[in-house]
Amino acid sequence: MAEIIEKKVIDLDGGTAIEAFPGVGLVGHIAGSYMVSALEMEMAGYIISDKLPALSIVYEGSIIPPLRIHTHENIAIFIADIPPPPEAVFEITRDIAEYLKKKNVKRSISLAGIGIGKQGEKVYAAATEKDYLTDVTVEALKIGSIVGASGSLLLECKRLNIPGIGLLAETMGNVPDPRASAMLVEELGRMLNLKIDIKPLLEEAQAVEEKYQQMIEEMPKKEEGGEYVPMYR
Amino acid sequence: MAEIIEKKVIDLDGGTAIEAFPGVGLVGHIAGSYMVSALEMEMAGYIISDKLPALSIVYEGSIIPPLRIHTHENIAIFIADIPPPPEAVFEITRDIAEYLKKKNVKRSISLAGIGIGKQGEKVYAAATEKDYLTDVTVEALKIGSIVGASGSLLLECKRLNIPGIGLLAETMGNVPDPRASAMLVEELGRMLNLKIDIKPLLEEAQAVEEKYQQMIEEMPKKEEGGEYVPMYR
Amino acid sequence: MAEIIEKKVIDLDGGTAIEAFPGVGLVGHIAGSYMVSALEMEMAGYIISDKLPALSIVYEGSIIPPLRIHTHENIAIFIADIPPPPEAVFEITRDIAEYLKKKNVKRSISLAGIGIGKQGEKVYAAATEKDYLTDVTVEALKIGSIVGASGSLLLECKRLNIPGIGLLAETMGNVPDPRASAMLVEELGRMLNLKIDIKPLLEEAQAVEEKYQQMIEEMPKKEEGGEYVPMYR
Amino acid sequence: MAEIIEKKVIDLDGGTAIEAFPGVGLVGHIAGSYMVSALEMEMAGYIISDKLPALSIVYEGSIIPPLRIHTHENIAIFIADIPPPPEAVFEITRDIAEYLKKKNVKRSISLAGIGIGKQGEKVYAAATEKDYLTDVTVEALKIGSIVGASGSLLLECKRLNIPGIGLLAETMGNVPDPRASAMLVEELGRMLNLKIDIKPLLEEAQAVEEKYQQMIEEMPKKEEGGEYVPMYR
Amino acid sequence: MAEIIEKKVIDLDGGTAIEAFPGVGLVGHIAGSYMVSALEMEMAGYIISDKLPALSIVYEGSIIPPLRIHTHENIAIFIADIPPPPEAVFEITRDIAEYLKKKNVKRSISLAGIGIGKQGEKVYAAATEKDYLTDVTVEALKIGSIVGASGSLLLECKRLNIPGIGLLAETMGNVPDPRASAMLVEELGRMLNLKIDIKPLLEEAQAVEEKYQQMIEEMPKKEEGGEYVPMYR
Repeated sequence: MAEIIEKKVIDLDGGTAIEAFPGVGLVGHIAGSYMVSALEMEMAGYIISDKLPALSIVYEGSIIPPLRIHTHENIAIFIADIPPPPEAVFEITRDIAEYLKKKNVKRSISLAGIGIGKQGEKVYAAATEKDYLTDVTVEALKIGSIVGASGSLLLECKRLNIPGIGLLAETMGNVPDPRASAMLVEELGRMLNLKIDIKPLLEEAQAVEEKYQQMIEEMPKKEEGGEYVPMYR
Repeated sequence: MAEIIEKKVIDLDGGTAIEAFPGVGLVGHIAGSYMVSALEMEMAGYIISDKLPALSIVYEGSIIPPLRIHTHENIAIFIADIPPPPEAVFEITRDIAEYLKKKNVKRSISLAGIGIGKQGEKVYAAATEKDYLTDVTVEALKIGSIVGASGSLLLECKRLNIPGIGLLAETMGNVPDPRASAMLVEELGRMLNLKIDIKPLLEEAQAVEEKYQQMIEEMPKKEEGGEYVPMYR
Repeated sequence: MAEIIEKKVIDLDGGTAIEAFPGVGLVGHIAGSYMVSALEMEMAGYIISDKLPALSIVYEGSIIPPLRIHTHENIAIFIADIPPPPEAVFEITRDIAEYLKKKNVKRSISLAGIGIGKQGEKVYAAATEKDYLTDVTVEALKIGSIVGASGSLLLECKRLNIPGIGLLAETMGNVPDPRASAMLVEELGRMLNLKIDIKPLLEEAQAVEEKYQQMIEEMPKKEEGGEYVPMYR
Repeated sequence: MAEIIEKKVIDLDGGTAIEAFPGVGLVGHIAGSYMVSALEMEMAGYIISDKLPALSIVYEGSIIPPLRIHTHENIAIFIADIPPPPEAVFEITRDIAEYLKKKNVKRSISLAGIGIGKQGEKVYAAATEKDYLTDVTVEALKIGSIVGASGSLLLECKRLNIPGIGLLAETMGNVPDPRASAMLVEELGRMLNLKIDIKPLLEEAQAVEEKYQQMIEEMPKKEEGGEYVPMYR
Repeated sequence: MAEIIEKKVIDLDGGTAIEAFPGVGLVGHIAGSYMVSALEMEMAGYIISDKLPALSIVYEGSIIPPLRIHTHENIAIFIADIPPPPEAVFEITRDIAEYLKKKNVKRSISLAGIGIGKQGEKVYAAATEKDYLTDVTVEALKIGSIVGASGSLLLECKRLNIPGIGLLAETMGNVPDPRASAMLVEELGRMLNLKIDIKPLLEEAQAVEEKYQQMIEEMPKKEEGGEYVPMYR
């Protein structure tokens, strides 16, 4: 059972939802975190589930849940600090999609990566119906697959007739890639008519990678094995 | 829980269902994909299940589910891009069989392979009642077993008294085999009175195998281990 | 959930049920298959369960379920081509026992093997109440255990007060052993007053073992690991 | 779901229950089996559960369940030939405790071992309330833990206010130890005012160990791995 | 299903709950045990769950549950001798949080460790709302995560608007660390206006570590693997 808990009023009527869960190269998670930070988006709610690992995040002395909703005007970012375990993904994304339907969003954008084994240069797009790609300036992906929460949420959007768009940044694959995230933020900025300076993200790229590496090493390992817990802010 | 979602009107009264899930040599999946392509069969519906891995397929910029129903007149192909995990097979094939019963199909044809460890030369048939083999020009299989979704769907057809036929192409076993698929398409063409040119399939065989190999390498691995995700179009 | 499906009228009032599931040395399964063949017992029903692996058997062009009921007068053989996975055994044997109770059988005979690491020479018997051993000409087993479906069905018979008898043939252990099966068929013949020539079984022993070996090698492996799928006719 | 089945009238009003499941050094199981044998306690009932492995025990030609209740006057021994798998322990011990409450027993005694890596010399005791130790002549255990069915049953006794006593014999650890069991039987004899000659047990110790070793080797291995199936009488 | 069982009247109105489950360096568990001992806090209740391993603790001849509630005035320590397995944590901490809400506690304090790979020197704090940190004299943690029961309970407190505070002691990581526990006890003493002499704890540190090491070695291993069972008093 997953539950979406609102701590503030969340009005998404005609607005945009952005899904930024950790996936390939952590590009979605990093892009979402940067947006939250750049737009000073407040935490308006969060998601709990008995299928998530027992974990709370500490940020500036505050205890916050690993799956949160941050809002700015009628934009909501659904961000996760840990990838939900496979058996939780369907339930969580279904609950999010049904929540978005009820909130009457205009569209849902999933941020994800495509592992290409080398530094990425491009962002691709795919949509639940091809027409929705008119909003997008990047190339449509010809063939491929989207795994994890992004793939699952987009299918749920399709089922509920919520316009769903996937932005897929090329990336190395198994290392955090803020540079690929910057490409996602740029395209998001265009789509949302928001001015977001990505320079700090590019400048931070190096520093962030080092901090990330250090945190991973310091963090106690989850005992069950299997899941790895990416931690990035 | 599996759910069959119709996006268009699906009329199968007196018609034929074809099951083309990935199995030995991917022969059923490849044959089904080729039929969809050759007959320009539109996606009329799809199947969702919380037991399937979180994954959506991208094809020409469109996000589509991995288990789909494509139709052409009163023919429906049930195609899967990934083999359902063992714990989902019973539920999905039971739901399909009950759906077919309700739709009053004339018969259900499962496309599958028999691994023989070398290039295949023949297609065999088996049916839920021996009488149904009169439709078929190929030899009846004397003894053997049909594993996975095909085996399960045929048993469900037997239970519900839906005439069920398995077409079983000999194949190497663990590599995609468009050549064996071509044999299946030929027999299907005969059974359905459809003219389907298999030359392109034979010509593509080589190219397709290479493309497949490349995609497998590029696709992010499913984290849970175990399942492998064949991707073929 | 397991379900027993009757395809023909099954009258077992005062009759005998024989359980012939694969176990040690496959002796029960081989003996049961031979009886089915020798007495030309027709398939009168079968058992389905969502906990069984997805698999159908092909025999002379017909698709048949792996767990079947074959009948001859008021004798019914419950035969399985695959051993039910451990988590399905309790449910299936409980359903069979309750079915037999309802059908008012006189007794249930389980055919099983005792691995002794060398060519077997004897059949032993055990019964849910010692009195039932009067029907049996072989020696009572002093101490031991009966694992798998046979052990579980006999306990269920005991619970429901169905006279239950286990015939336990000594056998090598992990290779199919038609010779030990022949001993079971002989004893069964005596108990049921049936003339069954075991010579063909003894003659076939060698040939059958070779055919079995070949089929195992050709059959696609179940992906989940664990279970092995004996296939013998 | 576990179920306690009475085959005879079981009157435990003001009487004593003894739990003798296999654990460290099999000491509880061996002590209980010896008591059953020495006092010629008849099987009055048994316990079934869908979470137990499929297995029946054969003893002198009779098929008996692996979890049984043997009685002698108002003493009942709950004996198991196999350790219930971890996921079944809670359910089974809870059902036993509730059964004992209903039967209004005076106390429940659990027989267990403490592995010390060498030949044991002492029996310790622990009780759900310290007062109950007045019945006991052996030393109270200062600190430690009781794992498995014994630990779980004692907690359930505590919850239901059934006086519960653990008798814990020092033992090597992973080999059957009839000598340690003899110490348990001695203390039990004192507590129950029963004359039980432990000499045969001590004399048999050597023989029993050899027989046990041989049976383990002859018994077919449970396929699922994990559990090991101690068999001792 | 978890259940909280009260053996005595537990009045926590306006009081403080302390969670002391085993985690990194066992620091929370050791600190809690020391408090229980120093304040002679009686066991007022305990928690049972079918998802906990089958285990009871013996202490001075008494059988006690591994998850207990000890009270002193309106302070309750929730202490665990074993870490609940991952699949039980959510349920147990949710039940505790709902129990605390009903009891109208003023706040809940979780004691935990942060593994830093060397001798710790500092305690950090984090709270469900930053305001609650005014009670605390130690530094707020900037960024990090709290895993296990502490992380989960703090999230549940946040959900139910129970002021929740995490005290996080730096510690080596995978060895019991009474020295870090002493820092937690000191801060707890300040927060609760209790005089607790930590000298004995510091003095015992060495002795305790040795005793712990010895007990771990003597305790029978849980067969299922995975969980390890810390035992510390």
